Amino acid sequence: MTSGLQMSRRIRRTPFTSCIEKLGVSGFTVVNHTLLPKSFKRSIEEDFAHLRTDVQMWDVGCQRQVEIEGPDALSLVQMMTPRNVGNAQVGQCLYLALTTDKGKIINDPILLKLNDEKFWLSIADSDVLLWAKALAIGLNLNVSVREPDVSPLAIQGPAAQDVMIEIFGKGVRDLGFFRFGRFDFEDTQQVISRTGYSSQNGYEIYLDDTSLGKKLWDVIWTVGTRYNMRPGGPNLIDRIEAGLISFGNDMTSENTPLECGMEKYCSLTDDIDFLGKEYLIKEKKTGSRRQIRGVIFSGKSQGACTIPWQLYDGSTNVGQITSGIFNPSLGVNTGIALIEKGHWNLGQRIDVVIGKGDIRRGQVCFLPFTVPENREIMMSL
Amino acid sequence: MTSGLQMSRRIRRTPFTSCIEKLGVSGFTVVNHTLLPKSFKRSIEEDFAHLRTDVQMWDVGCQRQVEIEGPDALSLVQMMTPRNVGNAQVGQCLYLALTTDKGKIINDPILLKLNDEKFWLSIADSDVLLWAKALAIGLNLNVSVREPDVSPLAIQGPAAQDVMIEIFGKGVRDLGFFRFGRFDFEDTQQVISRTGYSSQNGYEIYLDDTSLGKKLWDVIWTVGTRYNMRPGGPNLIDRIEAGLISFGNDMTSENTPLECGMEKYCSLTDDIDFLGKEYLIKEKKTGSRRQIRGVIFSGKSQGACTIPWQLYDGSTNVGQITSGIFNPSLGVNTGIALIEKGHWNLGQRIDVVIGKGDIRRGQVCFLPFTVPENREIMMSL
Repeated sequence: MTSGLQMSRRIRRTPFTSCIEKLGVSGFTVVNHTLLPKSFKRSIEEDFAHLRTDVQMWDVGCQRQVEIEGPDALSLVQMMTPRNVGNAQVGQCLYLALTTDKGKIINDPILLKLNDEKFWLSIADSDVLLWAKALAIGLNLNVSVREPDVSPLAIQGPAAQDVMIEIFGKGVRDLGFFRFGRFDFEDTQQVISRTGYSSQNGYEIYLDDTSLGKKLWDVIWTVGTRYNMRPGGPNLIDRIEAGLISFGNDMTSENTPLECGMEKYCSLTDDIDFLGKEYLIKEKKTGSRRQIRGVIFSGKSQGACTIPWQLYDGSTNVGQITSGIFNPSLGVNTGIALIEKGHWNLGQRIDVVIGKGDIRRGQVCFLPFTVPENREIMMSL
Repeated sequence: MTSGLQMSRRIRRTPFTSCIEKLGVSGFTVVNHTLLPKSFKRSIEEDFAHLRTDVQMWDVGCQRQVEIEGPDALSLVQMMTPRNVGNAQVGQCLYLALTTDKGKIINDPILLKLNDEKFWLSIADSDVLLWAKALAIGLNLNVSVREPDVSPLAIQGPAAQDVMIEIFGKGVRDLGFFRFGRFDFEDTQQVISRTGYSSQNGYEIYLDDTSLGKKLWDVIWTVGTRYNMRPGGPNLIDRIEAGLISFGNDMTSENTPLECGMEKYCSLTDDIDFLGKEYLIKEKKTGSRRQIRGVIFSGKSQGACTIPWQLYDGSTNVGQITSGIFNPSLGVNTGIALIEKGHWNLGQRIDVVIGKGDIRRGQVCFLPFTVPENREIMMSL
C-alpha cells in the first residue's frame, strides 16, 4: 500500500537522496527522521530476483550512528545491552539489543568498536541518541554522545564483492563477515563493513562526509553498471525469508530480546551489569510468553502485510504476523510472527486472517525460512 | 513535493486512520513513528481558505503523550525544561522547550498538568519517552514514564466551538486558552484542551481509548457536516503566517530556545534547576548567534520549501528559510528562517535563493507575520 509522503526539512535527506531521485525513486519510508528509499517503479518481486542475481546500491543513510566516546564509553555501552561487549575487538560488528530497565527492547543496532574508548551504534528506528545521552547525564559518565556526519551506503548482491574490489582494492575480500576496516576514498579513510540488511553477501560504507556523497555514489554507479547494478532498498521478500527482524515491525518496546530470538545475544550468566538483567533472568527461568517464528500459508496474499495479520488456533487469537508477503521463490506466503506460548512449535497448524473474512491455513516454521527443518512443512502445505 | 510512502506496522496508524482513509487522504507525513494526514486531494491554498472560514477535523494522533507520574514527577519535568513549571496549575497547558545539558532543544511539547504528581508532555517529533525514561533511570527518580493509549484529535477553525458545544456541552466555551478540562463521552471522561497547531481558536481531544476512535470521529463528523467540516491537517500557509515553529523543520537539536524566540519561556533568573541552565544564561549575556525571524519575498514561489532556501546579504550566507510558501491572503511569499547576528533586524534586505539561480529580493519580518510592525514592510516589498 502506498500513499503520498509530504516532504519537509524534518524528514531528513541523506547525502545520496538527490542521486536516487535522478534514478526514479518511487517509494520511501521514514527511519530515524530520515528518508529510506524502498522502491524504483519495479515490483518487490522484480527487485527480489535482481538482488539475488546481480548487485544493488541502497541509500541506507537513515541508519544513523550514535557515537559514544570517552573513558566511560565501554561502561555505558555495556549498561545498554544484554550482550557481553567486554571482549569485542576493534574492527568487530556486533548485532545486539538495547533494553530498558524492565528488559524491553528499544532498538537492535549493530555495534562497531572503533577503538577501546569509541563505539558506534548503527541504529534502527528510535532516538537512541537521546537514550544514551540521558543515561550519561543521569549517571554522570565521562563520555561524549553525538550523532556524527556518517551516512551508510549498502552494496548488496552476489556481485557486490567484485564491484567493491574495483573501487576499494582487494582488501575488502579479506574482511570477515561482521568485520570492518578502513579503506581509501578520495584521500579520506572510510569505514567499510561486511554487513547488510539482506541475505546476500554485501558491504556497507559508513561515509563520514556528506559533501562526498554524490562522488561516492557516482564512482560506484559507474563501476556497477558493468555488473547490472540497480538502485534498491531492503527487500521485504528477502528480509522475511532470511528471518531478519525489524524493530517497530516485528518487535516493539513491548517485547524482550528473549521473545525475539535474540537469546544467543543475551549474556545472562556473565558477570556484567546491564539494564533489565533481572527481568531477563526471570523470563529465562519461567519461559517466555511469546516467541518469534515464521509462518507459511497457502494461496497468494494480496500484497504485503501493512496491518498485522491475526493468527488463530481454533477460536483463540494466538499471535500475529507483523511482516508478511508472498515469496515467489518458495512458492508460499511467508510471515514473521510473534506467537503465544503453546502454539509456536514447528509444524503447528494455525489460521491466518489476512483480510475481512479471508482465512488461510498456515503452519509455524523456524526462522530463517531456509533452514532444513522447515523443508517438510513447506512441502506439506 | 510528494512521493510514495510505503506502509508498514512500524509507521503506526492512529485510532482515526481508517476514518481518514475513507475520506480520501492523499498525503501523509510521519511524526513520532506515526502517520500524520496532511492532504486530501485539495491544494494547500484551498485547505487554508477553508480552515479560516469553516471547521476542520485533524487526526493528530501522532502527538504522542509522554506520561510522567509519581512523587518525583515535578522534579523530573522541571529538570527537563527551562520554563518554570513549579507554579503550573492543574488544568493548565504550558508550551515549553526541552533542553539537553548543553541547552540545545530536543523537543517543544505542550505540558499538561493532570495532578500534582502526574504530567503529560504532548510531544513534537522525537522520542522524549526514551529521554525521560533514561533520565529517571540514571538519576534513580521515583517516577513511572510511559506512553499511554492517548491519541489527540483536533477540531480547528471558526466553527470549532459550535461543533464542540453540540457534542460536549457548553462547558467547552468556558475553557480558557491553553486550559483543559474533562468532558463526558460515551460514559468516559476525556481530556479536552483549548489548543491546536493553527492560528484559529480550536480544541484538541486527548482520546484515551483507541477502541473509541471510530465512534468519536463519526459523532463529530455527523455534527460537523452541518458546519461544512472537512478533514485536514496542520496547514503550512497558516502555520507560517502564525509563526508556529516546528521542531525538526525550523529548529533542530543544533539550536537553543533563545535562538528560537522562546526567551519568554526560559526562566533563567528563577531559583530552579534544569539541564543546560548555565549555557542559556551565558547565551543570554553574550547574545545569540542566530535568531528566528520571518522573511517575505516577491514573485510567487514554486510550491513549498522542502529543502532550505538560503539567505544572502550580498555574497554572505546569513541563514536559511526552513519553512516557506506563498501566502495568497498576504500576497507574498512567507518563510520562517534562522538568521545570523547582524542581519536579523526588522526590514533588513536579504536575497533568497529558492532554486538554482532563482534569486528573489526579500526582507526580514517579525513573527507572526500579522503583527503591526510588519505592515510597512509588506507594503514596500
